[in-house]
Amino acid sequence: MRSHFSTPWKVVIDIERTSRRTLMTYHRQDSANLLVFIALLTLTILTIWLFKHRRFRFLHETGLAMIYGLLVGVVLRYGIHVPRDINNMTLSCLVNASPATLLVNVSGKFYEYTLKGEISANEISEVQDNEMLRKVTFDPEVFFNILLPPIIFHAGYSLKRRHFFRNLGSILAYAFMGTVISCFVIGMIMYGCVMLMKEVGQLAGEFFFTDCLFFGAIVSATDPVTVLAIFNELQVDADLYALLFGESVLNDAVAIVLSSSIVAYQPAGDNSHTFEATAMLKSFGVFLGVFSGSFALGVATGIVTALISSDFTKLRDFPLLETALFFLMSWSTFLLAEACGFTGVVAVLFCGITQAHYTYNNLSPESQDRTKQLFELLNFLAENFIFSYMGLTLFSFQYHVFNPMFIIGAFLAVFLGRAANIYPLSLLLNFGRRNKIGSNFQHVMMFSGLRGAMTFALSIRDTATYARQMMFSTTLLIVFFTVWVCGGGTTQMLSCMRIRVGVDSDQDNSVSRGQHPSSKHLYSRWTFDSNPFSYLKPILTHSGPPLTATLPACCGPLARCLTSPQAYEGQLRDDDSDLILNDGDISLTYGDVTVSADASGARASRGLGPLCGVTSDEALDRELAFGEQELVIRGTRLVLPMDDSEGPLAPALPPPPSGLDLRRHRE
Amino acid sequence: MRSHFSTPWKVVIDIERTSRRTLMTYHRQDSANLLVFIALLTLTILTIWLFKHRRFRFLHETGLAMIYGLLVGVVLRYGIHVPRDINNMTLSCLVNASPATLLVNVSGKFYEYTLKGEISANEISEVQDNEMLRKVTFDPEVFFNILLPPIIFHAGYSLKRRHFFRNLGSILAYAFMGTVISCFVIGMIMYGCVMLMKEVGQLAGEFFFTDCLFFGAIVSATDPVTVLAIFNELQVDADLYALLFGESVLNDAVAIVLSSSIVAYQPAGDNSHTFEATAMLKSFGVFLGVFSGSFALGVATGIVTALISSDFTKLRDFPLLETALFFLMSWSTFLLAEACGFTGVVAVLFCGITQAHYTYNNLSPESQDRTKQLFELLNFLAENFIFSYMGLTLFSFQYHVFNPMFIIGAFLAVFLGRAANIYPLSLLLNFGRRNKIGSNFQHVMMFSGLRGAMTFALSIRDTATYARQMMFSTTLLIVFFTVWVCGGGTTQMLSCMRIRVGVDSDQDNSVSRGQHPSSKHLYSRWTFDSNPFSYLKPILTHSGPPLTATLPACCGPLARCLTSPQAYEGQLRDDDSDLILNDGDISLTYGDVTVSADASGARASRGLGPLCGVTSDEALDRELAFGEQELVIRGTRLVLPMDDSEGPLAPALPPPPSGLDLRRHRE
Repeated sequence: MRSHFSTPWKVVIDIERTSRRTLMTYHRQDSANLLVFIALLTLTILTIWLFKHRRFRFLHETGLAMIYGLLVGVVLRYGIHVPRDINNMTLSCLVNASPATLLVNVSGKFYEYTLKGEISANEISEVQDNEMLRKVTFDPEVFFNILLPPIIFHAGYSLKRRHFFRNLGSILAYAFMGTVISCFVIGMIMYGCVMLMKEVGQLAGEFFFTDCLFFGAIVSATDPVTVLAIFNELQVDADLYALLFGESVLNDAVAIVLSSSIVAYQPAGDNSHTFEATAMLKSFGVFLGVFSGSFALGVATGIVTALISSDFTKLRDFPLLETALFFLMSWSTFLLAEACGFTGVVAVLFCGITQAHYTYNNLSPESQDRTKQLFELLNFLAENFIFSYMGLTLFSFQYHVFNPMFIIGAFLAVFLGRAANIYPLSLLLNFGRRNKIGSNFQHVMMFSGLRGAMTFALSIRDTATYARQMMFSTTLLIVFFTVWVCGGGTTQMLSCMRIRVGVDSDQDNSVSRGQHPSSKHLYSRWTFDSNPFSYLKPILTHSGPPLTATLPACCGPLARCLTSPQAYEGQLRDDDSDLILNDGDISLTYGDVTVSADASGARASRGLGPLCGVTSDEALDRELAFGEQELVIRGTRLVLPMDDSEGPLAPALPPPPSGLDLRRHRE
Repeated sequence: MRSHFSTPWKVVIDIERTSRRTLMTYHRQDSANLLVFIALLTLTILTIWLFKHRRFRFLHETGLAMIYGLLVGVVLRYGIHVPRDINNMTLSCLVNASPATLLVNVSGKFYEYTLKGEISANEISEVQDNEMLRKVTFDPEVFFNILLPPIIFHAGYSLKRRHFFRNLGSILAYAFMGTVISCFVIGMIMYGCVMLMKEVGQLAGEFFFTDCLFFGAIVSATDPVTVLAIFNELQVDADLYALLFGESVLNDAVAIVLSSSIVAYQPAGDNSHTFEATAMLKSFGVFLGVFSGSFALGVATGIVTALISSDFTKLRDFPLLETALFFLMSWSTFLLAEACGFTGVVAVLFCGITQAHYTYNNLSPESQDRTKQLFELLNFLAENFIFSYMGLTLFSFQYHVFNPMFIIGAFLAVFLGRAANIYPLSLLLNFGRRNKIGSNFQHVMMFSGLRGAMTFALSIRDTATYARQMMFSTTLLIVFFTVWVCGGGTTQMLSCMRIRVGVDSDQDNSVSRGQHPSSKHLYSRWTFDSNPFSYLKPILTHSGPPLTATLPACCGPLARCLTSPQAYEGQLRDDDSDLILNDGDISLTYGDVTVSADASGARASRGLGPLCGVTSDEALDRELAFGEQELVIRGTRLVLPMDDSEGPLAPALPPPPSGLDLRRHRE
């Protein structure tokens, strides 16, 4: 039977007898377990509401979710004890593969089993004695395939694009070089720590240098969601916000690809943990290949979506179809990347950025709202779910390895790694920047290196070996500490560092730092669309200058053919619509174009026909309202020489009081 | 080893050797397969857009999705042939149960397998020779646990409540009595057909009377989504719409519980297919228990959500939290019902109706939009997915049993079953109704008995036996026929039956039938809130008359305590706000109360603080716009003595041109 066939996928095993009831029971238990998490989330939401209502800022919702998760974990671990009814039977059947499907024949009835994954040997030897704990444990791949994609997409989709692209150079430096530096610094320190532990005899298993580097990669992914939420609330300087947010979004992508390249490092020969140049180069190749492949895929899907929803198709007459298409295309980016062997999460991130930059401008105002709100909701649910699961895992995970030396070493390494990332790079960047990154900014960035969902997901993905288990336990503690302590101390930190708060990012950014009030437009060299890319925007959207204005004269006919009429109109009133985007909503441009183009009454001209239903009435109202608003704002516009479209989700900047004032003005 | 222990759940099987690569490969293939469906949906959306753009009404999106599914099915079946690499190995290991988890030991590495489900014997004997077809096949439970809940919730949430509750008696009669009649008529006819087939020797397997009844139950669930879409577009009479929609929503619930009670019918003894009174009674008990349990659960969760989001908590200041809570509570209804052994889909339906009736009124305008749009999107995606999967299944399903006699019999039975439901019941109902259901209405209802997602999901759930396979194949054909032919012929049918179109349901419904122009308020006896329930509304929401007005004087203190200030305000202006709800949006009432209560400028009083971010500005704008609108509409209001709140999703009635006219009026 030990023959060699290519890829066998079915094994039939005869087992005696069973009843259909078992299946039903499992389904019920699954529902009950999921219900535990939903109850947790509901509780979190209600408490968050209470906190927001009372304006408590010391604990963010994610920190709260972790606390609730911890409590439930304690209850499950020590409160409920389901008696164990386990029967391990070793059935020796020789097959040369683990097939995807097992068929088990129980006296005539066939049961299908699907491969869930490989599990570590000690998970079997120490048989879990608490059924309930096993039940509330999710497949780690759930995080990568279900929970992380909406979070990462949301991050990309909500990049405040003007400030992001202004600081693009610095952000890329922090995200790429910084993460690599951090990874290697942490890896090196941890290797020293591990060597020391081996000396003292504290190490109960193998721990290689690649493991240390892997640890460095996973804890280099920062997630300052708590900090940014408070920044938003307090309206902290927009450039600081952009630097932190941009770095944290991109370094997630770097960390995930970096960690997978470290796993891919496999020197030839028996001892697979020595240094070898070819394997190293191969790992570097994997890094470059996976990263660029994921990047290209994400951007490509974004551009395809932008083309589909562009002006040539009148898809925006049907917001539901448009939103559904947007959702499906963004999701398919993830699947396509995974199917091609790239990293779905990274592809989704760049897809989100592209969608925000190009597709968002093509969507109808209603779809803009819908997509914003949809991904905001998904992000909110996924994030809180992950953080409450994190809390739960501290008690429900069965193979924790808490080693005091390793933990202290890790905390130290994380601190030093962050410092080695921020301070030297800032120094370097300040040579090139007119607008220096002040030392108070650097301290805040250092302080805001929280670890969150991505670090957790990467560390729980593989907990098969001793080294990985120790990493996982330590990572959990690092996340708890940073979220509670650093997250909770943000307001204190801001006041201590004398960071200005209450800054209206759009009108005031030039003077926000108080150093270079006139250096604002010097940033424009970082603008994404100021270079070859600027030709893309008028083709893919109908904002921006028409191609006829930007292409050389010889390309005239081609340019005219590719530019939509709106782009011309846009140019005609370009100076008008530049900073009408006060409240971070590009739809104002539409309101402007449409309403102003035909002010005599036929305002439903954008095809808000009877098919749109109830909503078109609202859209019309909003459009009219915006039209009016625009008339007033026009009096106070500022003209900047760069791309002014704000990020679609422009993380909840408090609305300028304009709505009210304008109204009053009119009255 | 054949010992008897209670519930064993782990079996360790030693298998030789494997690589981690297989797991990766399967994940990639899963992604690729899901991608096929997403591409299908994208294609459907683009074609729908084309159809809507060109105003083709003969083919609805669901019909289109089926066609695309069919095409892909053909390609997969005949175009792609993945060579079979199957190795069936029978490993004889005796265990007395099919455990939930199998551990397979492949030379030191352990792989975990989870129980997927029981599969029929012939699925193994006729080994599938096309790997690709197996791959695109979903677990049928996906439909019940993932795809149906949002569809059914959306249906409940979008019930046009005024017209629904007006016609509640008739709708309940059609849904309960009608479905049972239809089920038994179809069952009887099919039993005759099966007997005949047995005589002629066309029957290749067992087919019992319970199977026939089961078939009757599953094809009694109507799904006139195509018809209703066209009704909406053409603005067909609102009562006809309410009758059809209400019936189809409720009969899904009846059919699903009915079919599970038929499955639960198990007489004692060896021959389990004879008639037995006790088993029959038990089935009836199951029906009542499951239905009332699911109903109670759904309503209870709805009421809890309404209480949480009521006026006492100021949750509506944070639309994101509110929306998330709404979503989680609605989802937990499903899980709770499944965990308790009730039917989740039925619970979700009644939860949706309760949410629409009570919770919706408590939500902030922004959350109302968000929840509407979220469930609209989920419904759209799930529905089109199911219909395209349906098309695919015709070719990808491996065990079709197409029996011409059975098919002809089934079509006849479905026709007669629908007729036996509609005509006699209409006759009966017309004795009690002042506002008769005209014969043209009856013909349209007869014609609109399309079968859709629920019928499909019920029939694919169990395809283990010969009888069930024949049913499944026949059901598919019935769905195809009704969706394409009946759905496509709706406009012809309407003009043929001289049904008035272009009726504004809110202003014109009394004269829409041209028979009883003054009988409108006679409906009010059907109003849900005119009876004991009316006490609930002021407690759970802050609309409707305050309890102080409806409770006896002795309950005064209690009533005052339970009624929110808004409810008083509501009463003060009760005659004003009665039919302001022109465009089906209850938020107008808020706009009214808030804006009118304080017209001097402090309009952000409802806590649209800085935390609400970008969106609160829009909300304010909308509120202001509505406030203005209301001022004008008030001139033409109609006062009715009943509950006037419209359903939240009020399926896309075209907006009255008021928005435009009002504006013009003001100018």
